[in-house]
Amino acid sequence: MRHVTRPTLGILGGMGPLATADFYRRLVQRTPAGSDQAHLPVLIWADPAVPDRTAALLGEGPSPVPALVEGARWLQRAGVSCIAVPCNTAHAYVEQLSRATGVEVLDMIRAALETAARRRPGLERVGVLATRGTRLTGLYERAGARLGLDVVQVSGPVQEEYVDAAIRAVKAGAAPAAPESWIATATESLRERGAQTVVAACTEIPLISSAASRVLPLVDSTDALAEAAVSRLWRPAAAPGPALAVRTGGRTG
Amino acid sequence: MRHVTRPTLGILGGMGPLATADFYRRLVQRTPAGSDQAHLPVLIWADPAVPDRTAALLGEGPSPVPALVEGARWLQRAGVSCIAVPCNTAHAYVEQLSRATGVEVLDMIRAALETAARRRPGLERVGVLATRGTRLTGLYERAGARLGLDVVQVSGPVQEEYVDAAIRAVKAGAAPAAPESWIATATESLRERGAQTVVAACTEIPLISSAASRVLPLVDSTDALAEAAVSRLWRPAAAPGPALAVRTGGRTG
Repeated sequence: MRHVTRPTLGILGGMGPLATADFYRRLVQRTPAGSDQAHLPVLIWADPAVPDRTAALLGEGPSPVPALVEGARWLQRAGVSCIAVPCNTAHAYVEQLSRATGVEVLDMIRAALETAARRRPGLERVGVLATRGTRLTGLYERAGARLGLDVVQVSGPVQEEYVDAAIRAVKAGAAPAAPESWIATATESLRERGAQTVVAACTEIPLISSAASRVLPLVDSTDALAEAAVSRLWRPAAAPGPALAVRTGGRTG
Repeated sequence: MRHVTRPTLGILGGMGPLATADFYRRLVQRTPAGSDQAHLPVLIWADPAVPDRTAALLGEGPSPVPALVEGARWLQRAGVSCIAVPCNTAHAYVEQLSRATGVEVLDMIRAALETAARRRPGLERVGVLATRGTRLTGLYERAGARLGLDVVQVSGPVQEEYVDAAIRAVKAGAAPAAPESWIATATESLRERGAQTVVAACTEIPLISSAASRVLPLVDSTDALAEAAVSRLWRPAAAPGPALAVRTGGRTG
């Protein structure tokens, strides 16, 4: 991308594809640009054939690392400044990915917990709704410990019957009504465990979390990552002209 | 993308960014895949700094062709099978783009009109809501003539006060209420001109066309392009396993 001189965001996506599209939309919506041209340049590598992250973490499937490294290298060669991976479970492999490629990867887990702490001063206990893979890695627990936050998860049966089932339904393209209520039930169980805030810690969950957000204040890991990307890369000076001009007399299309 | 052996869609996007995110989401939703892994691999080049297409067509700005060619070449080198350009106005440059690069570009204009004709047997007159740039190119009129369809546009003042204003508002991130009603008013004027169907022929318009779809049957050019891409590239055989397995016992994340 020789002609792109502005900082460019790489998105290593496809895990799943709908969550990637959702992340890109939120990134655009959270960018304070007044015209097409003032938005961040973005390159997206979305190969949904990246092996299932949870299956790999459970020792039941091949590692996604070779595919992730290939995608990251490809984005890196194209000149991206840093990479966003809109998949919480894939964050189990982010350190390995950074080491193998030298590319900066934005930390979605830390971004989500920092957002939770910022929104509720004095926050002590955070509930996390995640895949079995993400739970297994302890990523949220470790990031929480660094920020002085206690992280709680749902019970095994709630994980399986409500959270996993809801994530699978979104990935399979199911209608949102049932998954919505499953995620609300799981959030209720986190509140009973003392959670003061819930983190939608799987990028499929924000797609079905409006009922859950009526149970507990909800932090959306997709939004937190989008905000981290905007704050890392976007500068008003990057706009080629005053944004206001577009509102008053710009062209279209 | 050496490890990707399945047909891959390239998206030349960023025109505008929100329309690109919307196209990607619709593509995923229209793909009959039952798991992440069964979806199409997608590469997106979204550089919103591509010069304004309408300004170029009006002779008031630089040509977007060099940027478009560079993006297309980059996608081509990555091994995409064909390219979708989710911007109607940019279709003025699609022939030039194909000639310069040899890459297959899906035809959004034809896809939209074919969808309109398929949905309403006996259709004679189609109204088009587009940018001034798209109008100027006569792209819809020429494609309509090939399909035996009469294409009508709104008057100059309606174009400026309602259609252009609505598109600009979406690009600038405005709240959808006012643009929604402007697009409905413009659709009303197309009905008065004898249109039996309206084509949302700018990828920003489907984002604000629910009121318009109550005035006339509406064909969404973004959807039509997504359907064309799925029909061109997606095959059930591309799925690595039976989709049903994911619904009943797949992993997540």
